[in-house]
Amino acid sequence: MCRWLAYSGSPVLLEELLYGPKNSLIVQSLHSQLGAEETNGDGFGVGWYGAEETPAVFHSIEPAWNDRNLRELSGHINAGVVFAHIRASTGSPVQQTNCHPFRHGRWLWMHNGLINDFHAVKRDLVLAVDPGLYPEIEGTTDSETLFHLALTFGLEDDPPTAVQRAIGLVESVGRKHGVEYPFQGTIATTDGESIWAFRYSSEGKSRSLFFSTDVRTLREMYPENELLRGLSDESRLVVSEPLGELAGAWNEVPESSWGVVKPGQDELHPFTPTGELAGVSP
Amino acid sequence: MCRWLAYSGSPVLLEELLYGPKNSLIVQSLHSQLGAEETNGDGFGVGWYGAEETPAVFHSIEPAWNDRNLRELSGHINAGVVFAHIRASTGSPVQQTNCHPFRHGRWLWMHNGLINDFHAVKRDLVLAVDPGLYPEIEGTTDSETLFHLALTFGLEDDPPTAVQRAIGLVESVGRKHGVEYPFQGTIATTDGESIWAFRYSSEGKSRSLFFSTDVRTLREMYPENELLRGLSDESRLVVSEPLGELAGAWNEVPESSWGVVKPGQDELHPFTPTGELAGVSP
Amino acid sequence: MCRWLAYSGSPVLLEELLYGPKNSLIVQSLHSQLGAEETNGDGFGVGWYGAEETPAVFHSIEPAWNDRNLRELSGHINAGVVFAHIRASTGSPVQQTNCHPFRHGRWLWMHNGLINDFHAVKRDLVLAVDPGLYPEIEGTTDSETLFHLALTFGLEDDPPTAVQRAIGLVESVGRKHGVEYPFQGTIATTDGESIWAFRYSSEGKSRSLFFSTDVRTLREMYPENELLRGLSDESRLVVSEPLGELAGAWNEVPESSWGVVKPGQDELHPFTPTGELAGVSP
Amino acid sequence: MCRWLAYSGSPVLLEELLYGPKNSLIVQSLHSQLGAEETNGDGFGVGWYGAEETPAVFHSIEPAWNDRNLRELSGHINAGVVFAHIRASTGSPVQQTNCHPFRHGRWLWMHNGLINDFHAVKRDLVLAVDPGLYPEIEGTTDSETLFHLALTFGLEDDPPTAVQRAIGLVESVGRKHGVEYPFQGTIATTDGESIWAFRYSSEGKSRSLFFSTDVRTLREMYPENELLRGLSDESRLVVSEPLGELAGAWNEVPESSWGVVKPGQDELHPFTPTGELAGVSP
Repeated sequence: MCRWLAYSGSPVLLEELLYGPKNSLIVQSLHSQLGAEETNGDGFGVGWYGAEETPAVFHSIEPAWNDRNLRELSGHINAGVVFAHIRASTGSPVQQTNCHPFRHGRWLWMHNGLINDFHAVKRDLVLAVDPGLYPEIEGTTDSETLFHLALTFGLEDDPPTAVQRAIGLVESVGRKHGVEYPFQGTIATTDGESIWAFRYSSEGKSRSLFFSTDVRTLREMYPENELLRGLSDESRLVVSEPLGELAGAWNEVPESSWGVVKPGQDELHPFTPTGELAGVSP
Repeated sequence: MCRWLAYSGSPVLLEELLYGPKNSLIVQSLHSQLGAEETNGDGFGVGWYGAEETPAVFHSIEPAWNDRNLRELSGHINAGVVFAHIRASTGSPVQQTNCHPFRHGRWLWMHNGLINDFHAVKRDLVLAVDPGLYPEIEGTTDSETLFHLALTFGLEDDPPTAVQRAIGLVESVGRKHGVEYPFQGTIATTDGESIWAFRYSSEGKSRSLFFSTDVRTLREMYPENELLRGLSDESRLVVSEPLGELAGAWNEVPESSWGVVKPGQDELHPFTPTGELAGVSP
Repeated sequence: MCRWLAYSGSPVLLEELLYGPKNSLIVQSLHSQLGAEETNGDGFGVGWYGAEETPAVFHSIEPAWNDRNLRELSGHINAGVVFAHIRASTGSPVQQTNCHPFRHGRWLWMHNGLINDFHAVKRDLVLAVDPGLYPEIEGTTDSETLFHLALTFGLEDDPPTAVQRAIGLVESVGRKHGVEYPFQGTIATTDGESIWAFRYSSEGKSRSLFFSTDVRTLREMYPENELLRGLSDESRLVVSEPLGELAGAWNEVPESSWGVVKPGQDELHPFTPTGELAGVSP
Repeated sequence: MCRWLAYSGSPVLLEELLYGPKNSLIVQSLHSQLGAEETNGDGFGVGWYGAEETPAVFHSIEPAWNDRNLRELSGHINAGVVFAHIRASTGSPVQQTNCHPFRHGRWLWMHNGLINDFHAVKRDLVLAVDPGLYPEIEGTTDSETLFHLALTFGLEDDPPTAVQRAIGLVESVGRKHGVEYPFQGTIATTDGESIWAFRYSSEGKSRSLFFSTDVRTLREMYPENELLRGLSDESRLVVSEPLGELAGAWNEVPESSWGVVKPGQDELHPFTPTGELAGVSP
């Protein structure tokens, strides 16, 4: 329902990430090729890490393709970790507080997909959020609730476990309310050092997710590509839909998986929600 | 923190209500004279009843004084019951879902004031909202939560009792959290027939509230005033701050009172929150 | 580049015109089928005639498909002459002053298409606008400039002649600047009584334009259609792209034509720009 | 009618400039003390120079005091030359293209004041703009027209002479149209190295303008002030209204003057518009 991009690597001008490639994220805001919705015009957001303790976020309710401030800012901001998200609302209002990425301290979170029948399960899910975190919820999306559930379940200490418990809870609560497939989507979260990405849906037909091939491999494949020469070996993109046209540049993340892009070796693991309702009380 | 106007009577062009009088509501959006905040530039809203079953609402995050659509619409819409509200945020984001008046079925609701320390008490208050109503909450203001508490406590059947219970709950929960003066403000609500207005604060120093003198009396006082000749005998305004310059046109609503403007005789009564926590379960 | 709808007939709720039909204008804002651009998300506007002397206009920079105020207003406003326009910018900023329909006194104007290479010819065209009208230009679009040229050339007295002279000037000036095909598009204009529609392009490959078949004919074709029973005999729609699914409901306006929908017999005529540059001085 | 701030010196976080001081520019957006208008809520803009060739600009139509993106960005952007402007419209629409600072190549421009009776003189002034620059005018303000006149008269080569000719033309054209006092205001412009500031009005009663005292002097006066210790000797602020509370920190720019803040010695000179109409043809 949305499209997103997560980057980690050598500092780059946001403009190159967002507008540069063929089928760039901004192009996808008008014409996505793989998305459930072709147009992602219900607001957008960008988050990045600079010199300050917490990441910056810029949220807008305009379509990304015609937002002049986004164009300006991305032509002047460099960053080594960047999250960008374009939204196709599944019902909640188009307002800045509903734009991804969401932030908590040093953490950013974004999501493509949905909690099915959120209207019916929202109250139960919100009640499971740590009361100390509850007042931080500013918008009304399923994605922000899921973020606060993951925080409640220890996202800052162990992201994969926390997300597995959060989605496990979503599935338990959803099924209690008779929802056949409670969760659908891909998620990215970061502390500014590593990026964790998740692909999962209750139905086993998840939104697409891709990560870029190792830059060294790409450089060997495309010795004349200047962009690749400028990137550090560990630069990596995770995206809901491939950008650009370099053959061999993208690997699909398998169904029911999570991975982490980090200094050192990246990892890819199976993802299994922790389903027991006992898991509710954090 | 905000300013509002409620009108009931002969159908009038919104423009006359909103822009016409000296010290009109739109002028107050820039320069309020009695408000806790001089500028009410954090969005606005208008609600009115036409031929359709439910009232219309128009919400905007622009300051009222420079909103071209408000100017346009109020020059073309006539109505016999009108609510208008200009906002000075006490912290919650400036977004359409936080703009008054709020609506539920045929009912409109608007509020000037605040639930003190809302951050601390919000979760408890939201939990007291009828689970069937809970998913209807679209924004993040104290005022909308209060509306849903009043609905939970039977607003549609007995507005004064429901509001007394809702504010009673706010006071109980607030005091439980150590808030000295949990509630402050004036409220207007309507079903399109009658308008109920409330003035109350835990501290006994409430925001100001005025209702217009009986039109017949005004006509006798000002036999040459054309505007007054055009209004039906029962036309009445309730406002947070007097409009215009007619001496004798306005009566202050006393502290801790509620009144109702309706076909037939208006009423004014003392307002006493129903304080027992037992009142929580509706 | 845009899509539009012009309605004249029995007063209808705007909602029925804008949201009701399959492939409605609001659906076209996300997924146009015939447009040069599939998405028309760069703002929109609606104009209608009520009891007041001048028509009302409502302009917004949000995409029409997610604008809550448009939904609200169109559920509460009835009118017998309605213009609605959804925009896909061809370069000028997305701002309310660039949203159609444009207004001058009792007249409304909207346009789908463009003045090619407007950047190069704008100054010459603006200089040809009557100096008394010049200060009324509020935005920066080619369409608004064209409207003011047509007003300069007598739109209020003789619309077809004025538009033929305005487009003639656009072609002369464009060719002087080496523009091969200076004009492209369809136009609708109204004084609240009649609606004039134009289809023309320098290249002879104009944007599409359709008018609805006579309501009596449609009623005979579809005796069970309730909507048709409610409309007066003279109700008529002119649209850039057919709405709904009634076979036989739509007639394409031929290339290089203008027509008028008015009380009495509608008309359709060939359209020929008045090309001489001598036509510049009004 | 507006308020502005121009900074040149050691790179600082925008937040410190915009939100830090008592009576900061953001506070002035709600409660200006010296302005012709107390509230400056009709949009704002910030421009700054980073590593890129041209400066960045961020424009918004929201009031500065409640804009969350401004708060975010200013907490993450450092710059050594910063322009910031808050707007109180004197009639032209509140839209991003009417927000200062305006940009041309490496140059920024902002203005507090107005061209009197702009409606009457606009066409003549716009005609005097270099036809090559004309298509760059994106908004509808007097301030942007003045900027393009100054560019036409050589702003990039000799700012004081160009501004004197531009305002001279405004006065000539204004008087031709019977305007008694054609110009009023203060202006700041920069190429990213030096900042030129102007204070002038036809009436001789100009908007206020202040520049900060030499940092070395301030440091001696306030040996314990930490902020001052962090600034380079040549850091300097030019503002329409003093910020903060340091006695002796501000010097008023005299009537009919222009000054330049630059590497090396600052300068202050008398300002005399070049009045002859012969000056029109650039």
